[in-house]
Amino acid sequence: MRAKAIALIIVLLCAAASAQDKPRRFSTTIPESEFPRLNADGSATFRVQAEQAQRVQVLLELGQSTYDMTKGQDGSWEVTTKPLLPGFHYYAISVDGFTSNDPGSRVFFAARKEVSGLEVPGPESDFFAVKDVPHGTVRTQWYFSKTTGETRRIFVYTPPGYDQNSRRYPVLYLQHGYGEDEAGWSDQGHENFILDNLIAAHKAVPMIIVNENGMTGVHFVPPPPPRAGASSNGPPPVRAVAQFFMNERYVAVDCVFSRDLIPYIDTHFRTIPDRDHRALAGLSMGGAQALRIGFHHLDQFSYLGAFSPAVDITDTTKDYEGALSDPAKVNRELHLLWLGIGTDDFLHAPVLQSHEVLEKAGIKHVWVESSGSHVWTVWRKYLADFAPKVFH
Amino acid sequence: MRAKAIALIIVLLCAAASAQDKPRRFSTTIPESEFPRLNADGSATFRVQAEQAQRVQVLLELGQSTYDMTKGQDGSWEVTTKPLLPGFHYYAISVDGFTSNDPGSRVFFAARKEVSGLEVPGPESDFFAVKDVPHGTVRTQWYFSKTTGETRRIFVYTPPGYDQNSRRYPVLYLQHGYGEDEAGWSDQGHENFILDNLIAAHKAVPMIIVNENGMTGVHFVPPPPPRAGASSNGPPPVRAVAQFFMNERYVAVDCVFSRDLIPYIDTHFRTIPDRDHRALAGLSMGGAQALRIGFHHLDQFSYLGAFSPAVDITDTTKDYEGALSDPAKVNRELHLLWLGIGTDDFLHAPVLQSHEVLEKAGIKHVWVESSGSHVWTVWRKYLADFAPKVFH
Repeated sequence: MRAKAIALIIVLLCAAASAQDKPRRFSTTIPESEFPRLNADGSATFRVQAEQAQRVQVLLELGQSTYDMTKGQDGSWEVTTKPLLPGFHYYAISVDGFTSNDPGSRVFFAARKEVSGLEVPGPESDFFAVKDVPHGTVRTQWYFSKTTGETRRIFVYTPPGYDQNSRRYPVLYLQHGYGEDEAGWSDQGHENFILDNLIAAHKAVPMIIVNENGMTGVHFVPPPPPRAGASSNGPPPVRAVAQFFMNERYVAVDCVFSRDLIPYIDTHFRTIPDRDHRALAGLSMGGAQALRIGFHHLDQFSYLGAFSPAVDITDTTKDYEGALSDPAKVNRELHLLWLGIGTDDFLHAPVLQSHEVLEKAGIKHVWVESSGSHVWTVWRKYLADFAPKVFH
Repeated sequence: MRAKAIALIIVLLCAAASAQDKPRRFSTTIPESEFPRLNADGSATFRVQAEQAQRVQVLLELGQSTYDMTKGQDGSWEVTTKPLLPGFHYYAISVDGFTSNDPGSRVFFAARKEVSGLEVPGPESDFFAVKDVPHGTVRTQWYFSKTTGETRRIFVYTPPGYDQNSRRYPVLYLQHGYGEDEAGWSDQGHENFILDNLIAAHKAVPMIIVNENGMTGVHFVPPPPPRAGASSNGPPPVRAVAQFFMNERYVAVDCVFSRDLIPYIDTHFRTIPDRDHRALAGLSMGGAQALRIGFHHLDQFSYLGAFSPAVDITDTTKDYEGALSDPAKVNRELHLLWLGIGTDDFLHAPVLQSHEVLEKAGIKHVWVESSGSHVWTVWRKYLADFAPKVFH
């Protein structure tokens, strides 16, 4: 009787603990923080404390869009934006010239530092939503790299059921962009929820995803912003950037992959360790890496994806040291070459041209010209388009 | 011949990619950021940009120690601290009243926001160093909780070799402190490297560690700082804090554990699902939770650890609703009760008293009075002391 009474009390207490109202908020707002606040029209209200400051601003998209904040009587500063595009936005707070994070929001690694992020929900948020489907695991794993002489951190997504069976799985190696790190595809990209949902809907086959750090040995320094009226010698800045990343050799990354990472993954996870079951994709700089490393390692990869890549392909007989000079061979060896860019992306022109050059040369590929700019909102969609097309 | 030549070129390129000099830096400094800089005497030099600011400060330990920064001609502000205690320090940058992160450093979740962290190396850093030993995995896992009606994120450490055998393992449930979250024990605590090293040295048995969010349903609001000269009614602030956390019922956390988490772990991981192979420990608020939930669930746990816990045990016949009123029964059921506090910890007095009350009542426990204050530097050491004592 006493045990029954205690059990009943626990059930009642647990039921009471379940009843909680949640205010309308961004998923990226710190739990229990009131700001940033999501308004009904899709705008955001920011508020920070800065008693002695002269000027406080919100810098959206790392400064492409700026809002001056207004000082209140209590030393707080506040601003409400216009309605924001649904999706993921980086932002910062600038106080008298000091640019840092909003203490009310979660941060994400980007632009080689920790940056505040804002997830604006919208009709296209469903495919990466946390649903009541079986969930895979994102494993933080450490392994020793002979190339860099250090223990490196990687993230490995294993699909739902991986621990409950003895099957072997194909592997997608998926790379972040310049200034980000190996956490990007899980933290900003929600690769795990995208794949959980695709797998639950039988739209993608269960696969392992591996994220390594692609900044290894990359020493690109962003060019200063172009000055108005300055005379222009050489290629325009956008093409210069695309050419830099396309022609960077990525020797360290290539060595880490071929000598250290792929052998580690194939011995520590239940993979199908051949080129027919190995894909390589990436975004921006990671897309340039996927194409360069992939074209030179067709013995290791048979599916390649370049999401808004920093590339400027002009001549398939010469680019990539001639790796594309035999289109029939490339078409025979690649099960999929996927290339996509948003029409508002600053890299749109060189990537569109790259597509046209590939097409003219007869190198088969999936071409996606979407809406959107150079943002995670687009790359999540690209992963959701790419993943169902591999390993069939 | 051609294949051999290419292989030789790859070996040479990879060798060249390995040769890199690293400047002396904090492990918590952003890769390629020059500041914060670690100096030979153990001091730190901070530098931030803040062109139009009037006053810029470094707030160490969340404000317990403050350094005014000096403005340079280029609009940057700089300061060098005195030599810092080895270990982990939270800090913030304050600019004209705005308190946020140092863009040059990694952040950690603490005090209910993202906070800059500084890892000062020292002779006692070895036990959590990343060594050339087999490494376990920290899994980010999502599971559905009936109690909260949401999919919750947890971290699960699986020991080296977990994927390569079919053994079953004991489980340590390990809780963070107030204002932190489930990432604390891996991000700040390095639980994985501590266990990797202990297991490699055969000092601890391989075990699974589970980290849940302990802030669920906790609505403590920190009291305002005491005013100088104010008359004191009621218990002093420190004891009031300790009593709050000790007597908080943690209903939501308890329900999540008993209804949702433990069943999930026991069905999705290869555990030994009984009380003899289940431990519960935590730091600060998490230590209070470990004792309260543990004393009331001796059917589920047989090892308890309270690291610098927010508790104020005064009467074992009444505290915890009488759960300790039969010391012989408690001693019979608990294989280990571990209690520790640093002599510089603000909770030292109530925890020392709790130890004395337990001892007087004849409740057996391991008592550790160490140097140090209420910081991760201490809690890492406590985990390294606690883990070898469980599951034998």
